[in-house]
Amino acid sequence: MNTKILPSSDEAYAYPLLIKRLLTSAQRFENENTIVYRGEQRFSYREFNDRVCRLANTLSDMGIGPGDTVAVLDWDSHRYLECFFAVPMIGAVLHTVNIRLSPEQLLYTMNHAEDDLVLVHEDFLSLVETIQGQLTTVKNYLLLSDHDTKPTSTLPHSGEYEERLSQAATEFDFPDFDENSVATTFYTTGTTGNPKGVYFSHRQLVLHTLNMIGALANADLKPLMGSDCVYMPITPMFHVHAWGMPYVATMLGLQQVYPGRYVPDELVRLIREEGVTFSHCVPTIFQMLLNSDEANKTDFSNWKALIGGSPLTTGLANKAAELGIQTYTGYGMSETCPLLSVTRIDRRISQQSEQQQISYRVKAGVPTNLVDMQIWDPTGKPLPQDGTASGEVVVRAPWLTQSYLHEPGKGDELWSGGWLHTGDVATISDDGYVEIRDRIKDVIKTGGEWISSLELESLISRHPQVASVAVVGVPDQRWGERPHALIVSQNGDLEADMIRLHLEQFVESGQINKWAIPETIDLVNDIPKTSVGKIDKKRIRAQLV
Amino acid sequence: MNTKILPSSDEAYAYPLLIKRLLTSAQRFENENTIVYRGEQRFSYREFNDRVCRLANTLSDMGIGPGDTVAVLDWDSHRYLECFFAVPMIGAVLHTVNIRLSPEQLLYTMNHAEDDLVLVHEDFLSLVETIQGQLTTVKNYLLLSDHDTKPTSTLPHSGEYEERLSQAATEFDFPDFDENSVATTFYTTGTTGNPKGVYFSHRQLVLHTLNMIGALANADLKPLMGSDCVYMPITPMFHVHAWGMPYVATMLGLQQVYPGRYVPDELVRLIREEGVTFSHCVPTIFQMLLNSDEANKTDFSNWKALIGGSPLTTGLANKAAELGIQTYTGYGMSETCPLLSVTRIDRRISQQSEQQQISYRVKAGVPTNLVDMQIWDPTGKPLPQDGTASGEVVVRAPWLTQSYLHEPGKGDELWSGGWLHTGDVATISDDGYVEIRDRIKDVIKTGGEWISSLELESLISRHPQVASVAVVGVPDQRWGERPHALIVSQNGDLEADMIRLHLEQFVESGQINKWAIPETIDLVNDIPKTSVGKIDKKRIRAQLV
Repeated sequence: MNTKILPSSDEAYAYPLLIKRLLTSAQRFENENTIVYRGEQRFSYREFNDRVCRLANTLSDMGIGPGDTVAVLDWDSHRYLECFFAVPMIGAVLHTVNIRLSPEQLLYTMNHAEDDLVLVHEDFLSLVETIQGQLTTVKNYLLLSDHDTKPTSTLPHSGEYEERLSQAATEFDFPDFDENSVATTFYTTGTTGNPKGVYFSHRQLVLHTLNMIGALANADLKPLMGSDCVYMPITPMFHVHAWGMPYVATMLGLQQVYPGRYVPDELVRLIREEGVTFSHCVPTIFQMLLNSDEANKTDFSNWKALIGGSPLTTGLANKAAELGIQTYTGYGMSETCPLLSVTRIDRRISQQSEQQQISYRVKAGVPTNLVDMQIWDPTGKPLPQDGTASGEVVVRAPWLTQSYLHEPGKGDELWSGGWLHTGDVATISDDGYVEIRDRIKDVIKTGGEWISSLELESLISRHPQVASVAVVGVPDQRWGERPHALIVSQNGDLEADMIRLHLEQFVESGQINKWAIPETIDLVNDIPKTSVGKIDKKRIRAQLV
Repeated sequence: MNTKILPSSDEAYAYPLLIKRLLTSAQRFENENTIVYRGEQRFSYREFNDRVCRLANTLSDMGIGPGDTVAVLDWDSHRYLECFFAVPMIGAVLHTVNIRLSPEQLLYTMNHAEDDLVLVHEDFLSLVETIQGQLTTVKNYLLLSDHDTKPTSTLPHSGEYEERLSQAATEFDFPDFDENSVATTFYTTGTTGNPKGVYFSHRQLVLHTLNMIGALANADLKPLMGSDCVYMPITPMFHVHAWGMPYVATMLGLQQVYPGRYVPDELVRLIREEGVTFSHCVPTIFQMLLNSDEANKTDFSNWKALIGGSPLTTGLANKAAELGIQTYTGYGMSETCPLLSVTRIDRRISQQSEQQQISYRVKAGVPTNLVDMQIWDPTGKPLPQDGTASGEVVVRAPWLTQSYLHEPGKGDELWSGGWLHTGDVATISDDGYVEIRDRIKDVIKTGGEWISSLELESLISRHPQVASVAVVGVPDQRWGERPHALIVSQNGDLEADMIRLHLEQFVESGQINKWAIPETIDLVNDIPKTSVGKIDKKRIRAQLV
């Protein structure tokens, strides 16, 4: 292209998109907003900025510099937020370690990421001490503690975080460098195989943050993160940077609450006592919060919740609405930084009834600004966005991981034709609303048609005697695949024909085609689940072959 | 810096920040929001997107492609908005021509920008016909009309805009290219010399737009451009892209009203009839709107106004507040794209009295996210941001013009030490609020101290017999410079000593130092003004030497 191009490399004018720029404004605000840890410690933004500088000096003193990797094992805390900034701001890579991994997986990820320094909370000391001898790249440790008494450890450490920070200077001249420098890395866990590392650059995180501000400002008539927002994450900070929200909240100088370890009653208490107005979480924990003892004494009507990770059911959204909680859905994945789409209750939708609004809130949102999203048929042809055609969600955006860390070959599963393939099957409506229908590997391809296993499960679960259900495709010589259902009965006297009869009504109402009714239905005592409680369709299929 | 760097040049993942991305979301929304022209024509976002494609096809058919320059002379219209997108989206440069320039200046800018194609509204046909013979680079014209009858012209044109668009296809495959490609250019006018061209890249405009969304979302507890905003510019689209707001409004898919020619009564009628909730303008036109005949029949209580270009006075902000209008101030200049800072009424300020809030609203705002702003003393040393120290405002941001078009030498006046020098003198308070004190060339440097000419004018103007006043510095052998005042008396019997006596009270109250009182005060009939009505201090100084 013969466009007129600016001399972008001219250093005099260059202004790279670096994470330090997200702090440029925030450090200036000496207003009443603070960063709160467990309701016990409070830091003004100026103190926070000082602590980021102290941490940067501490890391430098310990020999950490550009290109090194710093791993963190901590609960959600102000310390973690300080690491979100200080580590990439000195040019190092922040590895947010998934503290729920097995010791074997933890070891694998820390060696694979080539961690140089490990910041470890006292609650995880014994875990790390167990694997210490097998950590091949770690040179040093820094201990984190919630108490005045310093932790002791057999790890060869350089002291305790607060102690070191208190000795460090409150100024640090953070350098400029290439905005495509890697800032963070973390691991996704599949049902089989080793965890895979994804990584994001400064440019990607800054653009994801800027774009998220627009998305949250437009999610509703009142922005989810406006000046009067009190923010508390309920998605762990090790998990896709808590969906990137701490960067948004800090850039905007908002009141922030970090809850430490996730204990439902404790989280609800913080929502009540700290006046939290916005959080994000997965449906499972959302349900746990609403069912907690503390929920009964809590007025949730100022609290809004962004749900992601798994679909928000209408039932849960209704229950939340009864408590005055407005729910929103975000869609994305670890490989997408993560946000791709978010609920958008615009003027038109806000005028509809609550029940109609909920029908929008449980969808997977509208692609956010800058996100180019299409649905493709199996041959790679874009399908119409008419709310009916369903295909694999493929995306382009400035913040997609380019490949898996140290495994460039695996990136090929992710990228094809210049688009990232999410592995999700969805429809996109005329007005941009995305509805996820299934994982592409769980879709049942029968006689040239696609049947959504999720939809079939949803319809079967409406039978009053069904306790739980899983539907998978099994190979079929004539049709390619056929649906097969595993059902746990509520009381034991359920029969397969009752389910088929139950499904006939949805054929009559046009919701499914006749060929979607499974010939084979197994009544079982238990359905295989993964370690995080999801139905393990891989295992089910393996058992059937 | 030895950071880990992503292979950003890898085309498979590259996602340049191009203006077309601002349309990615908007084109998807088929909601009730429309783009309105003068209350007469209404286009849905889908129609708008079709028209952008039609225009791109029309331009291509006329031989316009990457690197070419397309000039537009039009009132604020949907057509102009279409040019904001289609011209840069095909890789060409949009020259937004200042239709208020003299024919000589117009000719100068159009030759200097090397315009290839000119889109000209029928109201400016005779103007362009006059200079046509001297336009050295223009190859073709396209006529714009607000009527069904096609305009006629002696210009060698390729037809009329609507006619051409109606014949063009509604699809265009906008290419990807380098995000540092120049997207727009326009000219700033000084009091002397030729206009100077500034230019902005796709990356700069996209980042300015994203950042502005954050700034407007945080300007108040309710965002200035939320989902229910109805936006109408009252800063011409040729002037720094109407402060970039049309890009914001379009990206967010908001209701937009384009008013055509600026006639105060007509603008107020549109605010009322179209339910406009947000506009931006200079103080002069803001005052004209509030004083218009239509103002008396208009309820302004849903309308918010962002004021810039010149300081918003407390008197005007008070008058607006009486009418229920909340005012906000933005600060920037043509060379800064333009937004650097904007009012931020956060939770703390929103709890204060209306009068206290106005004291914040009339300041020059708080630097927006991503803007690094400092104040420097004359030696280039950063001064404390304590609300007292005053120095030249210098900035870094991703959207600053790199130099003047085709005059790289002139950029040296703008840039020094890696910072853009605004030529404004200001204080910045502890909580980030900027207060502009003077233009640096108007500051009076006396005995090693700085006296703000604006402050002195403000104090002198409080004398009841002063109609208008200008203060400039005149060379002085002993002190370097001394203040000199020109005063127009209200009724003729004012004397210089009365002014000096009047100023003594401010010495006693500590507002000014004794040496700020001018020894020389001229009572005059008239104060020299520039063509746009500003006090012409250059001319005053020239007359005094």
